Formats: sequence, C-alpha cells, structure tokens
Amino acid sequence: MEVAKVLHMNGGIGDTSYAKNSLLQQKAILMTKPITDEAISALYHSLSPKTICIADLGCSTGPNTLLAVSELIKTIHDECKSNGQQSPAFHVFLNDLPSNDFNTIFRSLSAFHEDLRNQNMGGDGFGPPNCFVAGVAGSFYTRLFPFKSLHFVHSSYSLHWLSQVPDGTENNKGNIYLTSTSPVSVLKGYYMQYERDFATFLKYRSEELVKGGRMVLTMLGRKNQDNYSKGCSYEWELLATTLKLLVTQGSIEEEKVNSFNIPLYNPSPTEVKYIVEKEGSFTINCLETSEVQRNSSDDEKYNMARSFRSVAEPLLVSHFGDELNMDQLFHKYNEIIANDCMGKEKIMFVNLTILVMQI
Amino acid sequence: MEVAKVLHMNGGIGDTSYAKNSLLQQKAILMTKPITDEAISALYHSLSPKTICIADLGCSTGPNTLLAVSELIKTIHDECKSNGQQSPAFHVFLNDLPSNDFNTIFRSLSAFHEDLRNQNMGGDGFGPPNCFVAGVAGSFYTRLFPFKSLHFVHSSYSLHWLSQVPDGTENNKGNIYLTSTSPVSVLKGYYMQYERDFATFLKYRSEELVKGGRMVLTMLGRKNQDNYSKGCSYEWELLATTLKLLVTQGSIEEEKVNSFNIPLYNPSPTEVKYIVEKEGSFTINCLETSEVQRNSSDDEKYNMARSFRSVAEPLLVSHFGDELNMDQLFHKYNEIIANDCMGKEKIMFVNLTILVMQI
Repeated sequence: MEVAKVLHMNGGIGDTSYAKNSLLQQKAILMTKPITDEAISALYHSLSPKTICIADLGCSTGPNTLLAVSELIKTIHDECKSNGQQSPAFHVFLNDLPSNDFNTIFRSLSAFHEDLRNQNMGGDGFGPPNCFVAGVAGSFYTRLFPFKSLHFVHSSYSLHWLSQVPDGTENNKGNIYLTSTSPVSVLKGYYMQYERDFATFLKYRSEELVKGGRMVLTMLGRKNQDNYSKGCSYEWELLATTLKLLVTQGSIEEEKVNSFNIPLYNPSPTEVKYIVEKEGSFTINCLETSEVQRNSSDDEKYNMARSFRSVAEPLLVSHFGDELNMDQLFHKYNEIIANDCMGKEKIMFVNLTILVMQI
Repeated sequence: MEVAKVLHMNGGIGDTSYAKNSLLQQKAILMTKPITDEAISALYHSLSPKTICIADLGCSTGPNTLLAVSELIKTIHDECKSNGQQSPAFHVFLNDLPSNDFNTIFRSLSAFHEDLRNQNMGGDGFGPPNCFVAGVAGSFYTRLFPFKSLHFVHSSYSLHWLSQVPDGTENNKGNIYLTSTSPVSVLKGYYMQYERDFATFLKYRSEELVKGGRMVLTMLGRKNQDNYSKGCSYEWELLATTLKLLVTQGSIEEEKVNSFNIPLYNPSPTEVKYIVEKEGSFTINCLETSEVQRNSSDDEKYNMARSFRSVAEPLLVSHFGDELNMDQLFHKYNEIIANDCMGKEKIMFVNLTILVMQI
C-alpha cells in the first residue's frame, strides 16, 4: 500500500486538512514552545554534547520547515550566552519521504543561516552557533539513522498519517475517513493500524536516540470522549459528499467509492499514553492537548480548498486512476464547500503534544 | 564571485570537460579502487567504529553519484564477512552545491538499497549492512560537518573547480582558461587561487575528520612537466575560438570576451604535495597519476559537446548576460568541434589521486 506514502509526501503543500505549513501549524509550534524549550534544555544539561544531533521528522517543504529547529537552536544559544558559555554545535537532520521537495529546502538554507547570524549579533563575543543541516529521505516508520546517533527528535503535524490504509475498513460505506457514521469495526481497524504504526515509530526512534534523548511529537488528535475528530474530518466528509454526487451522476462506480479510505488517524491522549507505555522504550514527561478553532472565513475556506486538493488528489489518482476527472471533481467540491455552513458551528482542531524521554 | 558555484553545481550533468558522471569518471573511480579499498580497510582496522561516517564531496547527480560509496561499503562488508564479523553501519553524506538536484538522488536511493541487499544475499547469516544516506548542500570550501564527525572523505572530479575566477587573469587575452599561450602572470593567478582553495579545503576537512580519518581525492590534473592540461583545455579552447568568431562578426564585444575566464585548475602532483605539506593537517599515504586517452569518435564528440553546453552555459550567461545568443553560440561551437581534427593527435586526461590521513 503506497497510498499513505503518496499522501504523506504531499504534506509539503497541504497535509491533513491542509494543516502542514499552515498558520495553524505555525501556531501549534509556537504553542508547544514551552514544552520543546524545557525538553531541549533538560537534554543539554544532562548530556552536554558538543554537538546536539536533532532530527525533524516529516519536515515537509514550506515556511514552517525550519521553524521548530531554529527555535530549538535559539533556546540553547540564549541559555549558553546568559551563562557565559560557548553554544554547542547543532547537527540537524530534516526528514520527509523521498518525494518531498528537498531541493527547495536546500536552496533556502542560506537565508536560514543568515537569520541565525542576524539574531545572534550582539557584539558580545558569542557568534552564531555552528549549525549543519542535512536532508534525509525516507519513511519514519523505518530506521532512518545509525544506532544511538540522535539526541533530540521533533515531529509536528505528521504522525497522524498512517503507513497504509487500515485493514477492515471495507464497510465504511458513504465515508472515506472516520466520521460519526463509521461502524465500530472501522474505528477499530483505524486504531489498530495507528497502534502498530506508532509503536513501530517508537521502536525505531529508541534505537536511534541516545539514552536520555528526548522527543517532542505534535499531531492532530482528538479528545478522549470523542470517537473521531470533527475538525479533521470536515474536508474529507465534504469530499465524500462530492464523490457520492458523482456516483449518482454515473461518473464513477459506487463500489470504487466504498473501497476508498484515507490513511489518517487522530489519536486521543489515552491511546497515545497506552501505546508509549506498552512499547516501553520511553517515559512520558508531558502529554498535552490544546484546541484551536477553525477559521471559517471565505478566504480561509478558499485557501484550504486549494491546498486540500494538493493533498487529496494523489490519493484519489492512486485509487481511482484515470476514470475520475479531477477538475470536474474539485469544481464540484469547491461549489459544495462554498455553500457549506461550517461557520455556524464551532469546529475545533485538537493538537496533541507528547514529550517523552528515552529510558 | 558566484560563477564558480554556478559551474560546480552543473557538475551533475557535465562538469569540467563534461567529465563528471561520464564513463571517464566511472573509469577513474574503478581505477582508484585499490587505493580507496586500502584506505577504508586501514581506517576500519585502526578505529573500528560501529558506524563509519563517510562524506562524498561534489557528489553531483547521475550514474556515478553512489558508485564510490557502494564500492566502499562492499569492501568493508566483504572483509567483515570473510572474518566472520558483523559489518559496521554506514552513515553516508552526499554533498554538492545547493543547486544540485538532490531530489533525484533521494528518489534513486531505494534502488541503491535494493542493490546493496541483492549483492549481499548469500544466505550466510550476514545481512546487508545498515546504510543511512543523507544529503548535504553547500560548498566544500566551507565547513559542512560538525567537529570530528567524519571518518572518511571521498571526492572525485570536483576539486579542480576553484571557488572563484582567479585575480590577475585580465591579460589572458584570446583564452578563457589556461592554454599554451597564457602569460605566466595568468598561470600564477590560477595557481595562487588553487593553493588558497585547496588549503581551505584541507583545513575544514581536518576539523571535520577524526584523528586517523582518511581522504581519497581524485581530480583532473596535469603532469609535472606541463604548464597546463591539454586534455582538459581542449573544449575550452574551441569555445574561445567560437567566442572570437562571434567578436569578428560583431555579435559580442572583444572586451567582454577578454575578461571571461573559467574557474578551473588542473594541479600537478608536485603542487598538490606542496600544498598538503604546507597546510600540515594531513600526511600523504599515496599520490598517483594515471592517464586516460580521450576518445575522439564522433559519438563521443557529440556527447561531450552536448554535456559541455550544460557546463559552459551557466558560466557564459552569468558573464555575458542576454547579449549572447546561446543557441547561435553553440550552433557555431558544434560546427567547429565537428570539423576539428582532435583524433589525429593523442590527447590525454591526467587523473590525479591522493590518499591522505589526518594526523
């Protein structure tokens, strides 16, 4: 099942509910800054490496790609400066799937370094920290780094993507993702896939991280009391509506729509806690959720519809092939979303952030 | 002076005298295999790292990009296998300028890993070695890696590119590179720039390599008794002829042609030895030259003319801007090269390979 990979790659432009590299993700990175700061500081104090090795997993390509990393570097640099110490060096590994546009990231690095230099010019004898950036292409559900070669792992808005469409989702009729009408067996299929994937992620990272290494992971999740995330499923529900409309018009087969499902899962805090404890390589230092209200302005709707296409289209093409006319589909979709009255209801995104330490 | 960078980047397609990623470079990599094998073996025996960190500098994008690295990995793996030991892991850093096409490299990695797996399937309990590949964008005339983070550096057909067009080349009239008619002051200007650049390269690598780390560097050089490399200057001389023709036709200004020079230098073994000893961070374990005859068949000429354009054009555009019609120029150039009688004279490329060890 390469579907999930196709999707995950497109995180660069849109990603789940178009969130990656959106203002929403930027907000999430800044909201989790206290946790991230605390984690990198604690790491630096306990291990004091001369070079801190950091991986950002699912980095994508866009305005947020280097945001978290530069915040981490500034935190340590400022701390060292106020203690009169020399800052350590940073070896930064930016990871995403091979289909991600790494060329654009690499061509933006001189601006990133320039920014680091500018923000640290105080004429105080503490120059900008040495920061060496590398790109690493591959799925984070596989081993990506040598044994015990990382100190810190960061991942934002990527880990809700599954490695594949779950088994047992055949009878999710009329839906293409988890919604209020999905049968319990489908919920279970999605959860089981998430548990497998997240446990795999933890196992590989535990091999790559040194003892005492930390991870801060933020994903789009849901509250414990909900079975699915309304905030995340919104666009997918409208896409399902569009597909069903095309079925009634005879443009595509109903069977084909019924077997189409999106490899996304929005875990609850309880589920994340359970999987981390069961896998056993990490202790949880912090587990937080925060809610962000979706903006329903027309501008925002338009932007979301546009970037949603870049996320959804590869998945649709991979499932439906040539028989589905994408321009026709998204024309319809845009009509539906323009007339939808989301604004009248308060729909929230749930950010789930976990800080764990390698035992 | 960004000219050199523009050029170096294009190494992917052509590189000096269109040699990078050519059969010529492939031959050079295989010819230097005994030196490279000896170096990586000696390194592994003396340091026995669990993960061998290797950088390939000026890796370019093409069929030769991963050739040297996969030979290195196989050498160590076969040795470990015959000793009944587990192979170490490999952390491979592929470097070139930010304008290099890293996306294509990353998308070819699954085939590279597949190849590693296939070549090591003996059912003998020794699986393929763990190999983790990262891309690093930046000039190798700057620091690219953290302090003491590498064991082995390889570079092939890249170090004859200078970081900029040398000073003091204004009176290289009628030439755009070193030829038999270049004045001594121009020869000196080119050499001085090479000495500065190569010494800078050595200094930064000595910071990045661990004590006992090795480098195998192959570049297009020349014999001690020659002032310039006939094999390497051939296409540039024909380009100069073409440019002069366009001057007589009034298509470009003579002044503009006189101030155009290519940032390439082909060092002699004596010069390389002198610079390494003067810089002082490395001891020379081996310094070899080998000669390869240029193939003057029409096919080869056509291929070279085509890839030469991809190397020369960015340099020409950067110097002449819009005033030079590239199609016109290369049309003329192709006519000239087709009628040239290179085949009648035996013209050789000189490969210069040096193996050094960090003191």
